[in-house]
Amino acid sequence: SFMSSTGTFTYSAPEQELLCIFGTGDFGRSLGQRLLQTGYRVVYGSRRPHSCGPLPQGAQVMSHEAAAQSAGVIFLCVHRENYDFLETLVTQLKGKVLVDVSNNLKKNVYPEANAEYLQRLIPGAHVVKAFNTLSAWSLQNGPSDASRQVYLCGNSAEAKQQVVETATKLGFNVLDRGTLSAARELEDFPLQLFPEWRLPLRLAFGLTAFFFFYLLIRDVVYTYVEQDKDISFRIMVSLANKVFPIVSLIMLSLCYLPGVVAAFLQLYRGTKYKRFPDWLDRWMLCRKQLGLLALGFASLHVLYTLIIPIRYYVRFRINQTSVFDTTMAWRVDSYYAMGILGFGLYLLLGISSLPSVSNALSWREFSFIQSKLGYLTLFFCTFHTYLYGWDKFLRPSYYKWYTPPGYMLCLVVPSVVMALKLVILLPCVDRSLTRIRRGWERTDPEGDSKKSLLT
Amino acid sequence: SFMSSTGTFTYSAPEQELLCIFGTGDFGRSLGQRLLQTGYRVVYGSRRPHSCGPLPQGAQVMSHEAAAQSAGVIFLCVHRENYDFLETLVTQLKGKVLVDVSNNLKKNVYPEANAEYLQRLIPGAHVVKAFNTLSAWSLQNGPSDASRQVYLCGNSAEAKQQVVETATKLGFNVLDRGTLSAARELEDFPLQLFPEWRLPLRLAFGLTAFFFFYLLIRDVVYTYVEQDKDISFRIMVSLANKVFPIVSLIMLSLCYLPGVVAAFLQLYRGTKYKRFPDWLDRWMLCRKQLGLLALGFASLHVLYTLIIPIRYYVRFRINQTSVFDTTMAWRVDSYYAMGILGFGLYLLLGISSLPSVSNALSWREFSFIQSKLGYLTLFFCTFHTYLYGWDKFLRPSYYKWYTPPGYMLCLVVPSVVMALKLVILLPCVDRSLTRIRRGWERTDPEGDSKKSLLT
Amino acid sequence: SFMSSTGTFTYSAPEQELLCIFGTGDFGRSLGQRLLQTGYRVVYGSRRPHSCGPLPQGAQVMSHEAAAQSAGVIFLCVHRENYDFLETLVTQLKGKVLVDVSNNLKKNVYPEANAEYLQRLIPGAHVVKAFNTLSAWSLQNGPSDASRQVYLCGNSAEAKQQVVETATKLGFNVLDRGTLSAARELEDFPLQLFPEWRLPLRLAFGLTAFFFFYLLIRDVVYTYVEQDKDISFRIMVSLANKVFPIVSLIMLSLCYLPGVVAAFLQLYRGTKYKRFPDWLDRWMLCRKQLGLLALGFASLHVLYTLIIPIRYYVRFRINQTSVFDTTMAWRVDSYYAMGILGFGLYLLLGISSLPSVSNALSWREFSFIQSKLGYLTLFFCTFHTYLYGWDKFLRPSYYKWYTPPGYMLCLVVPSVVMALKLVILLPCVDRSLTRIRRGWERTDPEGDSKKSLLT
Repeated sequence: SFMSSTGTFTYSAPEQELLCIFGTGDFGRSLGQRLLQTGYRVVYGSRRPHSCGPLPQGAQVMSHEAAAQSAGVIFLCVHRENYDFLETLVTQLKGKVLVDVSNNLKKNVYPEANAEYLQRLIPGAHVVKAFNTLSAWSLQNGPSDASRQVYLCGNSAEAKQQVVETATKLGFNVLDRGTLSAARELEDFPLQLFPEWRLPLRLAFGLTAFFFFYLLIRDVVYTYVEQDKDISFRIMVSLANKVFPIVSLIMLSLCYLPGVVAAFLQLYRGTKYKRFPDWLDRWMLCRKQLGLLALGFASLHVLYTLIIPIRYYVRFRINQTSVFDTTMAWRVDSYYAMGILGFGLYLLLGISSLPSVSNALSWREFSFIQSKLGYLTLFFCTFHTYLYGWDKFLRPSYYKWYTPPGYMLCLVVPSVVMALKLVILLPCVDRSLTRIRRGWERTDPEGDSKKSLLT
Repeated sequence: SFMSSTGTFTYSAPEQELLCIFGTGDFGRSLGQRLLQTGYRVVYGSRRPHSCGPLPQGAQVMSHEAAAQSAGVIFLCVHRENYDFLETLVTQLKGKVLVDVSNNLKKNVYPEANAEYLQRLIPGAHVVKAFNTLSAWSLQNGPSDASRQVYLCGNSAEAKQQVVETATKLGFNVLDRGTLSAARELEDFPLQLFPEWRLPLRLAFGLTAFFFFYLLIRDVVYTYVEQDKDISFRIMVSLANKVFPIVSLIMLSLCYLPGVVAAFLQLYRGTKYKRFPDWLDRWMLCRKQLGLLALGFASLHVLYTLIIPIRYYVRFRINQTSVFDTTMAWRVDSYYAMGILGFGLYLLLGISSLPSVSNALSWREFSFIQSKLGYLTLFFCTFHTYLYGWDKFLRPSYYKWYTPPGYMLCLVVPSVVMALKLVILLPCVDRSLTRIRRGWERTDPEGDSKKSLLT
Repeated sequence: SFMSSTGTFTYSAPEQELLCIFGTGDFGRSLGQRLLQTGYRVVYGSRRPHSCGPLPQGAQVMSHEAAAQSAGVIFLCVHRENYDFLETLVTQLKGKVLVDVSNNLKKNVYPEANAEYLQRLIPGAHVVKAFNTLSAWSLQNGPSDASRQVYLCGNSAEAKQQVVETATKLGFNVLDRGTLSAARELEDFPLQLFPEWRLPLRLAFGLTAFFFFYLLIRDVVYTYVEQDKDISFRIMVSLANKVFPIVSLIMLSLCYLPGVVAAFLQLYRGTKYKRFPDWLDRWMLCRKQLGLLALGFASLHVLYTLIIPIRYYVRFRINQTSVFDTTMAWRVDSYYAMGILGFGLYLLLGISSLPSVSNALSWREFSFIQSKLGYLTLFFCTFHTYLYGWDKFLRPSYYKWYTPPGYMLCLVVPSVVMALKLVILLPCVDRSLTRIRRGWERTDPEGDSKKSLLT
C-alpha cells in the first residue's frame, strides 16, 4: 500500500507463480487455501467449473483443459479410481509437472503404485509423488509437530526441484526419496502404524501374559488351594510388580543377545562378509524398540515399588520386635542401590535414544552409551535380581508345586548374555573378533565366499 | 602456507567474498568477527572511520559511501531510529542486498515493520530481513541450542538466496518465511515469551488458586472452626497433593473437550466446511500446552504421593489392631494401579510431544497416540479418582458445610467429556460424523453455505 | 519394466551418474553398495582388479587409472599410509573431485590433516573431506539416529556441491564446514568422546569422592570409634543419599557462579569488550553439562529418598508414643515441598536442554527458563537444604570431631552465589551492568582498550 503513496517504488514485486489443482475435494481445497496464503496464484481444474462447491477465496476455476494449459505444475488431488479422465488431457499435460498426492485406503490393493500408474497413463508428463503423507487438516493449519516433513520422489530432477521449492515456501522440510520407484513406499507410509514396534510389542505382551498366569498360579491359586486363603487382591499391585521387572529384565537382555550371537557367528564363520540369517537381522533392527519397552516396564516397576514403604531397615524400626540383622540390612540396601543405579542408567539410555539427542552425538559417543553403559545397566539390573533372590535359590520351600519363582526364570537370559559377553571379552577371542571386524577373513578352501554378503 | 613451498599449486583459492556491515555496535562487531572467522572479508561503514572503537581483527573501516560501493551485501546493524542517514546513500545502495537485522524493544511501536520502512526508504535496494532472532552473544559463540535457526524474508528471491548462503556458511539453519510482509512477524518473534502458553498457564493458575482456597476452607478452616484444631501444617503437602491432581485431571479433560465439541458442532451443522467459532479454534490450538501442564501437575502429584507411605495393605500390617478387609485391599490397590498406569500413559503422551519424537512419527501414529492413548489416559485418571471416592459420594458427612469434596468437583468435566465421547462412538453418530469429515455436506436449502470456511 | 510393454514411454530415464571408489575395504564396499542402491553406477579402482575379493553386485572393477578416468567424482576409501600410489595418477586426477573419507586412529599423529596432505599430494584435484564421521555399518544400514549428519569441507565450492548432492540422495543431512582447513577438526570428530563433558564429570567425581570419604569418617567411622557400633550398612543408601544431594546442589550453584563472576568482572572493568580470562570462558561453556549432571544427582537423590517412608507426620502416626509437634510438622512438610518443587523445576530445565526443545524456543524464552527459572530452582534447593538443617547450625553436638555436617559444607557455594546475585539485582548495580551490557564503556584514560576482546 505504501508503494503508491511514494511513487518512487521501482523493484519488481515478487512474481506470483500460478499453480493448478485438479480436484476440489477436501485435500484440494486445503492445499489451494494454503498456496494462496503463501502468495501463489491458484487455478482449479474441474469437470463442472460453475458448480463445484465452495473454493478458497481468490482461486480461479476453469475446465481441466484450460487449467492444465495455464500452469506448469499441476497438483492432482483426485482418487486413483478417477485418474481415467486424464487420458483426454495427454496433449495439455505434455512436459508439465504432475504432482500425485494420492493414497490408498489399504496396502497392496493395486499391482503398482498410484504415481507409477499415473506416469504410465501420461508418459509425457513429469510425475512427482509428494505431499501424500500430509492430511488436509495439517495443510489448513500449517506445518507442525508430526507433519513438518514432506517426502517426494520422481524421475525428473527438474520437476522435483520445482516441487521442492513450493513445499519449502509452504514451510515444510522436504526429503527426496529418489526415483518414482520409491512411490509405493511413500504411499504405504501414511498407512503404517509403528511397523518396527510390532515384534517387540508382541514379545512384551507374550512375556507379560505368560508370567502373569505363571505367577497367578504360583502365588494366588497355590495359596488358595494349599492354605485356603484368598489373596486375590495382590493381583493389582504385588503381582504386577513381579511381572513388570521380570519382563523388563528379559527384554533388556534380549537387546544385547543378538549382538553377542552375531559376534559368535562371525567367529565361527571367520568372516564378517557373510550375511546374517534373516531372523538375526530383524532382531538387531528392533533392539532400540526392545530397549525402550524394557525401560517402560522398568519405570512401571519403579512406580509400583515406590508406593510400598519397603526398606528392611525402616520396617525393622517400625516392628521393633524383631532382632536387627546387619547382613540383612547390607543385602536389602545393596539390592535397592543396584536397582536405583540400574534404573538411572536405563533412563540415560532412553534419553540418548531421543532423536534430537542421538543426532547430537558422534558415532563413538552413541555406541559408548548404547554398548558400554548398556551392558553396565544389564549388569546392575541382573545383580539387583540376584540380590533379591539371595539364598532362596537353594531352599526347596520356594519351589512351590515344583516351579521356580518368576525372578529365577527371568535370570536365565541375562545370565547367558553376560556369560557369552565375558567369553567375547577374553583376550584371545577379542583379538580374533577385532581382526574379523576390521575385514580380515579366514581363508576357507571350500569356497564359502560365494554366499558372501556383498556379491 | 604449503602452496608457496610446493610451487605447483594451481587450483584457485576459494574466493573470499567481501561483505559490508553498517554499524559498529555490539551486534555489528560480533557479526563481523564471525564472518571473518568463516572466511569472509569484512568492511565496516562508519560515520567516523578513524574513531569507531575496537573492531574485529582483519576488518577494514571506511566511510559509509565507500563501504557500500565495495560490497554487494550490506548488513545494517543500526537501530531503526538511525535509519535516516541511509537516505544520502540511495545511489550507492541501488541494486544492493540490504540485510535488516533490527528489532524493536516493544511490539506495535511503529505502524510498519522496520524492514518495510527500510524498503520504503531505499526502494532501489533489495531489503532482506534476517538474523534478528539471534543475539550478539550467540553470534560470537556460534550456533548452539536455542540459536540455530535463522528466519528470513524479502521480496527478491535472488537477494534472499545470497543471504541464505552466508547464513548457511555461518552454520545456521535458514527458514524462508516468504515476502517482506512477514517482517513484522519476524521482528515480534524475539519479543515473544511463550505466547501459546499464556492461556493454559492462566487457566492453571486460576484453577489452582480456586481449589486451594476451596480446600483450605473445607479442610483447615472447617477443622479449626468446628473442632478447634490447628491442622494448618497440612497446607504444604496434603493440601497441595489434593489441588495438583484435581487441576491435572480438569486440564487433561479440557484437552479433549474441544474435539468433542467440534464433533457435535459438525454433526449439528451437517458440514465440516463452516469455520469453527474463534474461541473453539483458539482452544484447539492450545491443547498441547494444556496437556503438558496437566502432565506437570500429575508429576507433582506423583512425587507428593510417593513421600507418604500409603498402601492400605502395608498400613494394615503396621497397625495390626484393625481387621483386614479384602474389599478395601482390592479398592486401594486398584486405585493405585489405575493411577500408575494413567501416569505412565501421561508420560508417553508427553514424550511423544517432544518435537524430535513427533517429527519421527507418521501422522497416523501421532494421532493414534494423542487421540486413542490420550482417551485411555483420561479414562485411567478418571477411574482412579472414582476409586478414590468409592462410596463417599452418597455419605452426607463428607459434604462439610454443604460443599462437595474437591475431587467430586473435578470429576464433572472429565465425566462429561467421556460421556460425550461415548455418544460420538455410537455407530449411528460415528457414521454421520465420518461422512461429514470425508467432505459430505447435508443439503441445506437455506443456503448457509455462504458462511463457509473456504470462500 | 512397464516401459517396454507400453512402448509409448518417451521421457528420459534418470541419468545414472557414475561414481568411482578407490579401495575395496570395508568402508569402500559399504559405500559402493549404498550408492548402487540409491541408483548410481559404481566403478571400483583396484591394484588387482581381478582378485580384490567380494564387491557389491552391479559394481565394475578396473585399474586405478581406468576407474579415475571414467568418473568425475572419486571416493578415496584408503588409509592415509597408502596415499602414495596416487602420485602416479596425478594426470588422471586433474580437475576431478577427490573425496577423502579417511580417519586416523589417534589425534595429532600427523602434522597436517589427511585431506590437506592429500591436496598437497594431488594439487590438481579438488579435495573434499566428507563422510568420515560415518561408519561402514551406518552406510550399510542407511541413515539413522546417530549417523544422519554428514560434515564436509573443501576449497572448491563446485566440488563440494557435487558431494552435497550425492550425500543428500543417500539420505544424509549435510553440514558444510567451510574450507579444507576445517579438515583436521572433522578428522578429530569421530575420535572425540564427550569432550565438553570431561571437566564437569571430573568435578562430579572429585566432589562425590570427597564427600563420600568425609561422610564415611563422620558417620560410620565416628560411630564405630566413639560408640563401638557397626553401622557400615548405611553406606549403600543413607550415605549415598547424603552425597548425591550435596554434589547436586554444589554443581547447580557452580552453573550460576560464572555468570555472577562475569557480571562483577564487567562492573569492575567498566566494559564488556574485554575478553574474559580463559578459565572463566571454559567454565561458562560447560554450564549446560554441569547442570545436567546436577540434575542426574538430584534424580538419584529423589529415588533414594522415595524408598524410605519418611514424612514426620506419617512416622508420628506410626509411633504413637511421641507427642505431636506442629512446628516440626510444618518444618518437615515445607522441607519436602521445597525439595519437590525444586526437583520439578530441575526437570523443566533438563527438558528445555533437549536439542529439539531448545530449538523450538526463542532466545528470550530459552534465557527466561535457563536464567529466571534456574535461579528459582537454586533458591528452592538451597532453601530445602536450610530447612533440613533448621536449628542444627548452632548446636555443637552436630559438629562431630569438630567437622561440620556435609550439608552445611555444601551450602557455602549456593549461598555465596545467591548473595552475589542479590547484589547484582540492587537497582544501582543493575543499572550500571545493563549500561555496560548495551555496549557502554567507562572512559579509561590509561588506554586499557588495547587488550579488548575484538581487536
